Amino acid sequence: MPESSTPSARETETELKTWSERVDRVLERWLPAACTHPATLHEAMRYATLGGGKRLRPALVYATGRAVEVAPEHLDGVACAVELIHAYSLVHDDLPAMDDDDLRRGRPTCHKVFGEAMAILAGDALQALAFQVLSCDPQGPQDPAVRVRLVELLATAAGSRGMAGGQAIDLLSAGREITVAELEDMHIHKTGALIRASVVMAALTAPGLDQGLRDRLDHFAKCLGLAFQIHDDVLDVEEDTETLGKPQGSDAARDKPTYPRLVGLEASKALARELHAEALESLEPFGPGADLLRGIATYVVTRRH
Amino acid sequence: MPESSTPSARETETELKTWSERVDRVLERWLPAACTHPATLHEAMRYATLGGGKRLRPALVYATGRAVEVAPEHLDGVACAVELIHAYSLVHDDLPAMDDDDLRRGRPTCHKVFGEAMAILAGDALQALAFQVLSCDPQGPQDPAVRVRLVELLATAAGSRGMAGGQAIDLLSAGREITVAELEDMHIHKTGALIRASVVMAALTAPGLDQGLRDRLDHFAKCLGLAFQIHDDVLDVEEDTETLGKPQGSDAARDKPTYPRLVGLEASKALARELHAEALESLEPFGPGADLLRGIATYVVTRRH
Repeated sequence: MPESSTPSARETETELKTWSERVDRVLERWLPAACTHPATLHEAMRYATLGGGKRLRPALVYATGRAVEVAPEHLDGVACAVELIHAYSLVHDDLPAMDDDDLRRGRPTCHKVFGEAMAILAGDALQALAFQVLSCDPQGPQDPAVRVRLVELLATAAGSRGMAGGQAIDLLSAGREITVAELEDMHIHKTGALIRASVVMAALTAPGLDQGLRDRLDHFAKCLGLAFQIHDDVLDVEEDTETLGKPQGSDAARDKPTYPRLVGLEASKALARELHAEALESLEPFGPGADLLRGIATYVVTRRH
Repeated sequence: MPESSTPSARETETELKTWSERVDRVLERWLPAACTHPATLHEAMRYATLGGGKRLRPALVYATGRAVEVAPEHLDGVACAVELIHAYSLVHDDLPAMDDDDLRRGRPTCHKVFGEAMAILAGDALQALAFQVLSCDPQGPQDPAVRVRLVELLATAAGSRGMAGGQAIDLLSAGREITVAELEDMHIHKTGALIRASVVMAALTAPGLDQGLRDRLDHFAKCLGLAFQIHDDVLDVEEDTETLGKPQGSDAARDKPTYPRLVGLEASKALARELHAEALESLEPFGPGADLLRGIATYVVTRRH
């Protein structure tokens, strides 16, 4: 058996690019054409979804698939669905009533281009599309019971006890002193739930997988999700606006709680490193099939935007 | 075989009350408690969903169930899911960026009570909950393939080529001269898609049902959906604010296209009557099992709010 190892940053970035291009093609196929009636809504949905982005969640879907030996064509629907949920959450998060952001990925945000009302609807329709894709992707799991479970996992991860709940916790914490435990709780919901779902859903499509391995993948994703967010907070302090694609220091300017503010910059970095190590440890039984997951874990805590 | 007939308005209203109370109990059970973390979000979701309303869509689910001989306990999940989608759409529709309504069902709208950001999130989470309910209701269809199809139908009805698309068409038509065909197209999407899905989804849970009968139910729902909307437009002209629970003449004041504005009040009423007759005709082969559907059809074009 070949030895497992964490691929180099360059190898991971090359792989990520491949998967990102793949999910872009899948999204392109599922999103109604920009000329489909009502055209403006479909333009807004496409603008919000196809404008780049790291595609971290789809990459986790495909990388988990490689670790559990499920071919990418059977995971295109899942990869597409998690990215649609992510894309819709960004559109709504950027709205004036929420974070009021003008820039996203270096481009004007959806509501800046299409207006607030159309952006709200585009987000709503992207969420619906995610469930449509899961339910009717012809290459998805042949067992309908698995599909039902995928819908349940995604709906739970997106809903009030998952991502939307995390956004609410975020809202309620702005301008208030919160503890590290509360900050962690917010991130576990806000970004953690969907990152975890990406991995758990992909693992679910491998019906024969041992429960112990499933749990390890879940734990990997939990650590990764939190590490991702801590590193995001660190980047907001350390990197400039051009690299980030959004205004540097925007969290601090908005009086949002972040890890660096609560525990300091160095302690934040140390925490991200610990979570990274724990994530890698969770993958130990997987062998080289999980190398891409290892590479993604490292990418998540070393990326510069 | 006992003869079929349309029940009296009083009989229908009594039945509607029973089904409305039933779906309220189901919604109450599925909505997380108001003390569940994050509490404000769950309060907002409950406020938006449990504050009354006609519960027309759940009633159509249960009434279709009676026509096709599916027991109500197997339809609770479907009834709940369509109402959650409807409730979320109202929350978003009332937002300042959309219709900017302060009153709904005689009470302050969700964003008036919880703020705009929380209302956006409550709507988002209600949509996710609808798919969670469909996928994991223990009393729902035992065949997972039927569940998958229910998810697909609801996602399509809620999405960009259904309800959300209708809202977009509505937005794009405000302040512009549109044709009757365009107005009809808007309503077919905006309210028609979910009304149709309510009937078609309920019919889907009766696996042995003849395709011809399925098509008739679908046609019934199509006629009913449009009749409902035309009658809504008529009510906006004819009834006072107190009866409606929202400001009378609000459509006209907002320069929104309506049937009375486009074809006149009397022609609008005649059109609603024609659609009502066509709806009843679609139900001819069903016998007395469809009497509640007949009653609902009549209620829809005679109700005063």
